[in-house]
Parts: sequence; structure tokens; C-alpha cells
Amino acid sequence: MNFYKEITPAGFGIAIKVKETLFSAQSPFQKVEILDSDSTLGKILTLDDLMMTTEGDEYFYHEMIAHIPMMNHKEPKTVLVIGGGDGGTVREVLKHDTVEKVVLCEIDGMVIDACKKYLPTIAGELDNPKVEILVEDAIEYIKTKKNEFDIVLIDSTDPMGPGEGLFTEEFYTNVKKSLKKGGIVAAQSESPVVNKEEIKKMYTLLKKVFPITSTFTSPIPTYPGGYWAWAFCSEDVEPLSYIDEKRCEKITKNCKVYNKEYHLARFALPNFLKNLL
Amino acid sequence: MNFYKEITPAGFGIAIKVKETLFSAQSPFQKVEILDSDSTLGKILTLDDLMMTTEGDEYFYHEMIAHIPMMNHKEPKTVLVIGGGDGGTVREVLKHDTVEKVVLCEIDGMVIDACKKYLPTIAGELDNPKVEILVEDAIEYIKTKKNEFDIVLIDSTDPMGPGEGLFTEEFYTNVKKSLKKGGIVAAQSESPVVNKEEIKKMYTLLKKVFPITSTFTSPIPTYPGGYWAWAFCSEDVEPLSYIDEKRCEKITKNCKVYNKEYHLARFALPNFLKNLL
Repeated sequence: MNFYKEITPAGFGIAIKVKETLFSAQSPFQKVEILDSDSTLGKILTLDDLMMTTEGDEYFYHEMIAHIPMMNHKEPKTVLVIGGGDGGTVREVLKHDTVEKVVLCEIDGMVIDACKKYLPTIAGELDNPKVEILVEDAIEYIKTKKNEFDIVLIDSTDPMGPGEGLFTEEFYTNVKKSLKKGGIVAAQSESPVVNKEEIKKMYTLLKKVFPITSTFTSPIPTYPGGYWAWAFCSEDVEPLSYIDEKRCEKITKNCKVYNKEYHLARFALPNFLKNLL
Repeated sequence: MNFYKEITPAGFGIAIKVKETLFSAQSPFQKVEILDSDSTLGKILTLDDLMMTTEGDEYFYHEMIAHIPMMNHKEPKTVLVIGGGDGGTVREVLKHDTVEKVVLCEIDGMVIDACKKYLPTIAGELDNPKVEILVEDAIEYIKTKKNEFDIVLIDSTDPMGPGEGLFTEEFYTNVKKSLKKGGIVAAQSESPVVNKEEIKKMYTLLKKVFPITSTFTSPIPTYPGGYWAWAFCSEDVEPLSYIDEKRCEKITKNCKVYNKEYHLARFALPNFLKNLL
């Protein structure tokens, strides 16, 4: 029996039965693989042997990173997704009727191509005419953007490897400048169970840059510790200060996880995480 | 490198680096093992090769099964814990000053003895004078109990093996009869991610017996799917209808996860689980 095993530095992690490797190649940035699992998770994307997404549980992650900030914005029209080459976050963003344009800035074109071919239920909306795909480094891209986006979603890999520059004070400052008034950033912020040091470092930087920095969490079966956190940052919008009821109702019908009560509950953190932040 | 691997019928699960097996024996009911992991999880209890608890993440489970029902009761004095031979649930119950007596009804004395010896941070309160330990079958024990307990916590194994009889309509009916007025039952009810069929079956039976049957969930890093559910059942008490503020404040100081906001958020379920129930 073949297994995909991801053991974190904490000494434990996930194991998944694997039927075959459908795609494996080294891009200029990382090793990109698509595995066909022998499990309810279906097909899996890994980057440098780390779990990125699975057909079977991707909705936990993508619904949270997209809808928690989007629903807290009165009329999100322009959205920037940084990383997120699998397309899952873009798919969720497009469920909001208000959206006119989504820019996907992903450094690695191989990720986009592999996901379009092997993970169509996740990447299927990347060809939507509202989506502009830029295969380039978001660190450079964001430097020239001022007052352009209602929502910026940092759907990055971990703070080591190609994603490292997406966890710096300079980058966060440029992201802030790219926001319009009332703009909101959400950023994946690692596992509260196994990445405590990374979380501490990241939020220290975010708090330097954004006057409003909060945290929301959700279970994610295939991520380290089964439990994940995202940062909610803004210059002028508090989390839970607004929920668009009409959009919320419509999107709930279209989601496997997201609903209003689940949204409101996301910011209730366990003591150990509150203390860490 | 040695691993403890628990692969669920869904085809995926947890893998933990293991240093050595500290205890391994066959009781009349099951295989009982204590492993010393090479991870932040510390020592681990498994029964019939299924993960029961770890020193590193046990508080997620034990704080939830105990404090969610206990804090919803105005003055819990008498508590019955069914299963739970590791002692973690009893330890949490005893944090409530109102408690006068906790009965632990565990079928397998070997589990209690092994946990007392190898997992003292979990089992340490089993010698508390308020605790009465009965090494017997809860199915028989509960038959003669009428109007005796404020809280019953069903801290069982899965609905196969020695725990099977704890998932029947007859058993639930007897549990209901054992409750005093205002009494509340909480029961572990499997993983919403990998045990969908078991959950459906269990809640169908619970709803036949209890006029009030609800569900709360929390992440648990080492349980299948990283996400766990418990049933909240009563004849006359709605969940979230009461929270003892004074006890809540005191116990929050003593917990790694539990606090009032986290409590209130537990009953917000993802769509797929609402639909399942």
C-alpha cells in the first residue's frame, strides 16, 4: 500500500492512501505533484511534498478565506488573490454577484496548468471572463498598486520556500496601500496547533501594519493539526461589523460549510490561541 | 522510523512518530496500548489500535465533553461518566465547585490502571474522594438508575467493539430515566468528516428518545478528520439557554481551550453537517 505522509516538525501529521501519481514535475519554484488518492479525498495537489488541497476537503479552506472577508465588505467589486493557483479561492470569490474583477497573481504557472487539467472542480472558474491571471511575483506586483482593491486574499504556501517573501512587513505595507477605503485583507496564517512560532511572528508584523488585525479559525481535515487560522486585517473595518444578509443567504445555498452562524462563530478562539496572539 | 498510523475507512488518517511501546496487553474487552510518541503529542492511549487520547491534545476533547453541558446546568452536583477510563473527563468535571459526586462507570479496569500509571496528567484526579469508580458494564448499571444524575457524559469508544451497546435506543432511554429534572446528557458522536453514516444512525436514535437533541463540534487534532461532534440531549434544557457566568469565568482560567465565546460558537455547524442531521 502506498501512502502520502506529511509529518510536521511537531512529529505527527496526515497519511493518505495513494493509487498513483498523475503529475510530477519540478517548476522553477517548487516540486508540483498531483496524486490520485485511494480515499474520499479524491485527487490531491502537493507542493514540495506539502499538502495544498484535496478534492474532498478543499471547501473548508476556500470557503473560509473567501467568504469571511467578502461578506464583511459592503460591496466588494475588485479582488486580488495572491498565490491560490489551484483556483479554489477564485471560484468562491466569484459567488459574490458584486464582483467585477478578480486578479489572480500566482508565481508558478505550472500550478495553474496542473490544477486546470487534473482538478477541474477546483480550478474550473479560472477561465471566467471576470478573472485576470498574472503569472508573476506578487511581491513585485503589489509594489505599484495603490487604492485598487476592495479585498486582498493572501492564499500563500508556508512562510518557507517560495512563499517566504509574503510574510514580511514590507509586503504587508504594500498590500495595505493597494486597498481601497473599506478594504479588507485575509491571509492564511498556519496551524494554531503545530505552527505556534510562525503564527506569533506573522501576527507581530501584521499588527505593526494594520490597525485592525484579528483571527478566524476553522477545522481543515488535511492540514497540520486539523485546525487552521487566517488573519483578518483592515485599516477601517472591524470583523463582524457588517454581514451582507442578502448575499449571505444566497451564498449559503451554494456552500458546503459557510453559513451566517458559522461565520459569526469563526472569531471565537480557544484560550491557548488567544494567549499566543 | 516507527509510526503509529490510523487510517480510517475513508482512506486517510493520522501518522505519529513513535519512540517505544510502554504498555501493551489484551484485556477481556480490547487491546490496550500506551505508546511514547516522538512528537509534541507525548504519550498516547490506543484501544484496539484506535486513537483514544494523547497528552498533547487531550484537552480539546475533555474540555468540550465536560464543560459544554456542565456550564449549561444551573447546579450540577451528581455526574455520571460512562467510559472515559483515561480520567480526562472526570478531571474536567471536578473543576466545577458545585460537583459533589462523580461516578465513573468504565467496563475495562485495565484502561484505568494503565492511564493512572502512564498518563498521570490525564488520570490524576481519579483518586479524588468525590470520584466513585465502578469497573462494570454501563449498559447494566444504568438500567436501575432513576432520577439520580444532573449530568451524564457518554465518553465511549466507537459504535463497534465493546462500545457498541452504548449506541442503542434502549441504552439512551435508560440514560434519560437516570437524569434528574433539568438534567443534560453529552455523548461523543464521531467525526462529521469520516463517520457520516454512524452520525446519522446515532442521531436518529437520540431524537427518538430525547425531545431536545442538538450537536456541538470542535477541532481535535488527533481524531479522524481533525473535527469532532458531540450530542447535547435533554428532556427540558435547551443548549445555550443558560451559562453560569461565575463558574465560566473561573473555569476559563483553568482551561486551554474553553471560554464563554468558544462555548457559544460550538453549536454553529457547517452546512454539510446540518444537512446530515
